[in-house]
Amino acid sequence: MKNYKLIIEYDGSRYYGWQRQPGHNTIQGKVENILSILCGKEIEVIGAGRTDAGVHARGMAANAFMDTPLSAEEIRDYLNRYLPDDIAVREVREASPRFHARYNAIGKTYRYTCFDGPVKSVFDRKYYTPLCEAPDLERMRRAARILEGEHDFRNFCVNPRMKKSTVRRVDRIDIEREGDYLLFTVHGTGFLQNMVRIMVGTLLEVGFGRMEPEQVREALEARERQKAGPTAPAQGLCLLSVDYD
Amino acid sequence: MKNYKLIIEYDGSRYYGWQRQPGHNTIQGKVENILSILCGKEIEVIGAGRTDAGVHARGMAANAFMDTPLSAEEIRDYLNRYLPDDIAVREVREASPRFHARYNAIGKTYRYTCFDGPVKSVFDRKYYTPLCEAPDLERMRRAARILEGEHDFRNFCVNPRMKKSTVRRVDRIDIEREGDYLLFTVHGTGFLQNMVRIMVGTLLEVGFGRMEPEQVREALEARERQKAGPTAPAQGLCLLSVDYD
Repeated sequence: MKNYKLIIEYDGSRYYGWQRQPGHNTIQGKVENILSILCGKEIEVIGAGRTDAGVHARGMAANAFMDTPLSAEEIRDYLNRYLPDDIAVREVREASPRFHARYNAIGKTYRYTCFDGPVKSVFDRKYYTPLCEAPDLERMRRAARILEGEHDFRNFCVNPRMKKSTVRRVDRIDIEREGDYLLFTVHGTGFLQNMVRIMVGTLLEVGFGRMEPEQVREALEARERQKAGPTAPAQGLCLLSVDYD
Repeated sequence: MKNYKLIIEYDGSRYYGWQRQPGHNTIQGKVENILSILCGKEIEVIGAGRTDAGVHARGMAANAFMDTPLSAEEIRDYLNRYLPDDIAVREVREASPRFHARYNAIGKTYRYTCFDGPVKSVFDRKYYTPLCEAPDLERMRRAARILEGEHDFRNFCVNPRMKKSTVRRVDRIDIEREGDYLLFTVHGTGFLQNMVRIMVGTLLEVGFGRMEPEQVREALEARERQKAGPTAPAQGLCLLSVDYD
């Protein structure tokens, strides 16, 4: 049995998220099914984290223990031959037996894409969230500075009570404009469920002038989820990469 | 009645081509339906040309005569509000009453995109044609020089007998690599049905070594369609722009 590390890209539009769930189309489920056929026994694919329904990935990391005569490259090609065309395995390579895609992850980078031009662009329409007006970048950047650092993000997630701790560290939130696109790039050690989307939803409230940057601090410290902004739609979110030592 | 020029972008994947056809989803049909509702009478939208089923456009040009109190920008926004999200009207502006999108077009630029990397890219998967091996660019460029200029392209189209003349002028065929992508950019005064796709299919035969560059000349001069290469798939083709004086 060898341990393999996988880097997986997917268009999440058609999926019920990363995590295997009976009766639902999921990315983990698709990859596991093909590897299980390849190996003739049930294979578990451990992802670095879960992405929600509709969220995309360019670089989801995962690992799986397998016993197969195929080389790493042949495993990759086998997967890509049988995976639907909205999932691609970019890389397979042998990893240390101790490598665990979730426990060993030390950081993740997410990209949230909005579009605020007068005419929506057609070809990438499933990968951005359209906005009706242009938010104020400087206001959003001031608010982003408040979210950076180590905080209890219990108001920036769903199901906080399911977690031992809701303290997370956000290293950096970059907000850039490229033409009609607004790109939020978020790097942190780990994220709670919906956390990036709620952070972006909150920053947009600030950008539209419906919240003051300082209210983001109150939202962090308040006892109610309602103080933070709404959850931005899934389709704008993409997991870019997962860091390991 | 004013004459308006429209620039239209579309993902052709779901459509039976540009041209209105009863019982089929077409781009012309969609735009005409919405303008007819807006104006309360049947509106004809004249395209610069027809694109085949599955072919995309970034800059299809068209014109339509309409009587409406809306400004050009309001017409554009009205269209974009009701069009499906795989069609967008990038621009509407008033044109001279003599402007005719088909008769006045003096040139068109098409882009054909292939991908020959080891792992297919997911997000743009509907906009390129995957290749199993890398074709030889220099051979294709030599063959492209032969196709450039004014020729009788009767062997590079379908239904040549439907046309008064099958003589067309191809000004330039550029073939460039960008990473794992191969981009064929074709500019000419006009194109016959399937002509760009048959030219690309023929160039790929040369690139794969199954035809010699010089055989492209024979394919032009032969009396049979069979001498040219196969028709490259529709999904790789995109009409970039239409030129007017």
